[in-house]
Amino acid sequence: MPDLRRTAAEPGPSVVPDGLSDGSPYYDVAVVGAGVAGLSVAWRTARRGLSVVVVDPSPGSGATHASAGMLAPVSEVTYTEQPLLRLGLASLAMWPAFRDDLEGESGEDLDYRTDGTLDVAYGTDDMAYLDDLASFEESLGLRVERLTGRGCRALEPMLSPSVRGGLLARDDAWVNPRRVVSALLAALAKAGGTVVTEQAGGLAFDGDRVVGVRLASGQVIGATSVVVAAGPWSPSLVPGLPIRPIKGQILRLRGPEGFLTRCVRGLVHGAPAYLVPRGDGEITLGATMEEMGFDGRVTAGGVYELLRDARELVPGVTELELSETTVGFRPGTPDNLPLIGPLRGTGSRGPGEPAASAGPAAPRSPRPPDLLAATGHHRAGVLLAPITADAIAAFLTGDPVPQVVESCDPGRFSR
Amino acid sequence: MPDLRRTAAEPGPSVVPDGLSDGSPYYDVAVVGAGVAGLSVAWRTARRGLSVVVVDPSPGSGATHASAGMLAPVSEVTYTEQPLLRLGLASLAMWPAFRDDLEGESGEDLDYRTDGTLDVAYGTDDMAYLDDLASFEESLGLRVERLTGRGCRALEPMLSPSVRGGLLARDDAWVNPRRVVSALLAALAKAGGTVVTEQAGGLAFDGDRVVGVRLASGQVIGATSVVVAAGPWSPSLVPGLPIRPIKGQILRLRGPEGFLTRCVRGLVHGAPAYLVPRGDGEITLGATMEEMGFDGRVTAGGVYELLRDARELVPGVTELELSETTVGFRPGTPDNLPLIGPLRGTGSRGPGEPAASAGPAAPRSPRPPDLLAATGHHRAGVLLAPITADAIAAFLTGDPVPQVVESCDPGRFSR
Repeated sequence: MPDLRRTAAEPGPSVVPDGLSDGSPYYDVAVVGAGVAGLSVAWRTARRGLSVVVVDPSPGSGATHASAGMLAPVSEVTYTEQPLLRLGLASLAMWPAFRDDLEGESGEDLDYRTDGTLDVAYGTDDMAYLDDLASFEESLGLRVERLTGRGCRALEPMLSPSVRGGLLARDDAWVNPRRVVSALLAALAKAGGTVVTEQAGGLAFDGDRVVGVRLASGQVIGATSVVVAAGPWSPSLVPGLPIRPIKGQILRLRGPEGFLTRCVRGLVHGAPAYLVPRGDGEITLGATMEEMGFDGRVTAGGVYELLRDARELVPGVTELELSETTVGFRPGTPDNLPLIGPLRGTGSRGPGEPAASAGPAAPRSPRPPDLLAATGHHRAGVLLAPITADAIAAFLTGDPVPQVVESCDPGRFSR
Repeated sequence: MPDLRRTAAEPGPSVVPDGLSDGSPYYDVAVVGAGVAGLSVAWRTARRGLSVVVVDPSPGSGATHASAGMLAPVSEVTYTEQPLLRLGLASLAMWPAFRDDLEGESGEDLDYRTDGTLDVAYGTDDMAYLDDLASFEESLGLRVERLTGRGCRALEPMLSPSVRGGLLARDDAWVNPRRVVSALLAALAKAGGTVVTEQAGGLAFDGDRVVGVRLASGQVIGATSVVVAAGPWSPSLVPGLPIRPIKGQILRLRGPEGFLTRCVRGLVHGAPAYLVPRGDGEITLGATMEEMGFDGRVTAGGVYELLRDARELVPGVTELELSETTVGFRPGTPDNLPLIGPLRGTGSRGPGEPAASAGPAAPRSPRPPDLLAATGHHRAGVLLAPITADAIAAFLTGDPVPQVVESCDPGRFSR
């Protein structure tokens, strides 16, 4: 892992192209999108001494605002997604230092908690599934603990009496994603970064090369490198990027502190449901997964199903306040892995054509890539923020990139 | 029924008590509470030529804001509440003229609809209950129509295939209560009425006599008569009034126009549920009945039960937007009838003592009552607005009061 505390690195190359020598603002790096991915990239990059600007009309209002903030690669493991597991574990390992840095620089408390995730089962079928999952997790060297129903309720007395048993993943953590955004904005400002609260209208080109971001207002912000971190809206900047919105409806409940002490998950009616408690009594309850495009409606059916499933896991939720209903759009990719790294071949295309990719990123290129992606994090944006940020910073400065990030090469779908 | 179009009646007596001859504002009538009851009283009273002020920190924000606006005395009839039925039928009969007047004077469309209420049943037990109800309604001379399940779905194709049958009450109507408030405020202003958007702190006394309203700021608004129309908050002005808040949670859905064409009701899990469609595609879905005091929380359990019951009646609601969750407090009384009329014996009590009552109101008293109630309308505030307003106006001007209002004498509980 690179030394994250280095702050006085040499500034990045800042050759202003001829077309921009008109006094337009010019930065080493322009990040489009101020969700947890874009802000983490911007903060970590600014910390390395590069001049950074972030463009977003409403920082922190996208998927991050809806997110539950689970840092749960273990309990979210699936049989077919081991590259995602490796990426998640690598990023989870970076979270404690990331959190220390971020809380230290921002002075904000992220409500980072490490009490683990409790995955519970009802019927015999559910128990069999959890047993298989536990064996699989153990085969990967993950630490899980099998519990009886009584053992589950000893940890979480509000659990339904119908719970047959469960798995405790002690290494899973969680964090309040809204506080992460607030802290990142503060830390970015302290590191000298700039936030432009305007809509990005597209990329700016000098011939084949990306030279900045064109705002919707028409103004161009020049940059040596542009990082697309616009989540599900990324294809509006780089047409053809294989990212689609996956709608999620998520609820916030408010109860007494200590109603739950750890993340509780369960398969209910075949759909995964979870409850994530915060220190202030808030409980995030999620989440639907809907292929509905950018349909921003909270629906009667979505709210109904979330409340129904939560009641089955923890019957006492009925007494809690329903304090918020939110819709977010996860940036989904075909293989559920994010796009992290240079977008190759962009020099040869116009803004209306798909981005082509010509293989994995070569480290130590003579000049930094003009266009990079830090997007497509699907359900794992908060978990993957540290590794995404450090990987992008490494691509920009020519430092070694963690090998586990190779699975996220943005060009992998066109090979 | 009095001539509602009379506008040039002689002004009410305006003897300013000595204690208020300091230049304080002085009105014939001060109404405390700008819900549908208070505003209707104020408008009708101002129309009769009296000077009127309404005191409310937030007009229209109480039970009326939450209300579905059903004008449904027929389908809401219960075996033990025939006085309430008679009152409701009398007020329903006044609604067409009330609406014409109000729309004419305000220029606003109340979305008043007269397509009736469809009450549906599922199981055999439910059908038996509806059959009994129909016989009871017919014995009272009410017009109801028995329908098969197919007949119900012919009227409302979105109804569940499980519906066994139903009753159509063609005489029931409904209205958008928020538009009624908006129209009443406009009509009241046109009639010369005043609205003071401050909190009432209590009544002002001159010896034993009520002489106005004391604002929370300390200022006194003098009035010959004070009408307490503060719904569930009325006991804070007249301690001992037998009124309690009955919490209701109610949802607004938004769908395509014509999703439903009439009010649909049904007993689901033993609880009555209803869906009230508006012309603009909004559907009001209600409502919980909770003895929870002034607990203003929207709860997970309340929303869950409303959505669950609505899904059973009309499965397609799951696709609709959940556009609003609201809590309101109905002003409940021991017998579910409102308090309409003079509060007797107030002259002999201090502001901390219960109001006593000394019998029915005597018409043509030498001077108008100093203190009246127009509150405790429970679930029927919108339905009962016309008769409440005209009864109070009659009490104030000495005109004959409709006999059906005698059941609402505020003193009935102390006899």
